[in-house]
Amino acid sequence: MSTLAELAIFPLDKGESVSEYVAKVLKIIQQSNLEHQLTPMGTCIEGEFDDIMNIVSKCFKALEPECNRIYLTLKIDFRKNRKNALKQKIKSVEDKLHD
Amino acid sequence: MSTLAELAIFPLDKGESVSEYVAKVLKIIQQSNLEHQLTPMGTCIEGEFDDIMNIVSKCFKALEPECNRIYLTLKIDFRKNRKNALKQKIKSVEDKLHD
Amino acid sequence: MSTLAELAIFPLDKGESVSEYVAKVLKIIQQSNLEHQLTPMGTCIEGEFDDIMNIVSKCFKALEPECNRIYLTLKIDFRKNRKNALKQKIKSVEDKLHD
Amino acid sequence: MSTLAELAIFPLDKGESVSEYVAKVLKIIQQSNLEHQLTPMGTCIEGEFDDIMNIVSKCFKALEPECNRIYLTLKIDFRKNRKNALKQKIKSVEDKLHD
Repeated sequence: MSTLAELAIFPLDKGESVSEYVAKVLKIIQQSNLEHQLTPMGTCIEGEFDDIMNIVSKCFKALEPECNRIYLTLKIDFRKNRKNALKQKIKSVEDKLHD
Repeated sequence: MSTLAELAIFPLDKGESVSEYVAKVLKIIQQSNLEHQLTPMGTCIEGEFDDIMNIVSKCFKALEPECNRIYLTLKIDFRKNRKNALKQKIKSVEDKLHD
Repeated sequence: MSTLAELAIFPLDKGESVSEYVAKVLKIIQQSNLEHQLTPMGTCIEGEFDDIMNIVSKCFKALEPECNRIYLTLKIDFRKNRKNALKQKIKSVEDKLHD
Repeated sequence: MSTLAELAIFPLDKGESVSEYVAKVLKIIQQSNLEHQLTPMGTCIEGEFDDIMNIVSKCFKALEPECNRIYLTLKIDFRKNRKNALKQKIKSVEDKLHD
């Protein structure tokens, strides 16, 4: 799909360990059937723009009831007619490493 | 409102000057009636979470037809029961400057 | 100067109110004599690339002794031969609003 | 190491394909001997804070001579006494997936 996103979302009022909340968000992304990849700094998601925005909203709303303060960063890289972006972007860089 | 966002969105295939596209996006935000503030690195928007996500989508879709590649960064700071966040966050920091 | 940055930095282990730490960071930026502007979602700083990286390091090291977990986001927009970027970027967008 | 970073850096004046520049940056990170992981949206780097800032500067300076405009995003997650953060953060989330 043409849209590749990276989402990081966590509460600020739950102390320094937030992996419980990251796991909750990851479960929602897994249930979405969108291609995704957990990285050390966020979760990359590939899909149509609207589907990605929907998932971001669902993730936020899963944390909202139990968190007083939430921080979210989203980066989106859209490129027309790109396919298999999660793998293709990395392959494209690695191919050029050996030039 | 409880949700404060900062949006930066620009094309990668239009050369180094992108202010024409930033202006197009700013017009959409202005028409939304959401409180907002243009900064040197993005536009801050205050409102309900869903309204902000709607505006972000509108901004993206305004650029999509004419751009082959678009980069978007969104930061969201949600805090329950906060009001007048655009002004209040700055005031809260400035008050503590003099402590 | 050619480099414009936006820095947001805050602890994750101090509860939902972090303005005390943002104020501490802002004081350091103010003492740097670099042009800067506090926004609702971070602080914009204009200067030479190395000077900005130095200030970012100073800000981090001011929080490090008392914080167990710190989150930092930095966006940099570098453009050769640009002057007065903090004001010029906004003016450039506003000029195009009326086209 | 305690500091985990994610760096994305690319020119805005080279058209929609920027993987050549991402590869150039990745080579510099590889030569640093810091633990790192290329992801679809950036490169994660683990190390001491100063070493990471040094690498970010080197990456920027590698692109600067040939690019008129460069965009850089850096996210840093610092946590005291954390080891093996690149792997540990993902493991910590995955462990909680099955709770």
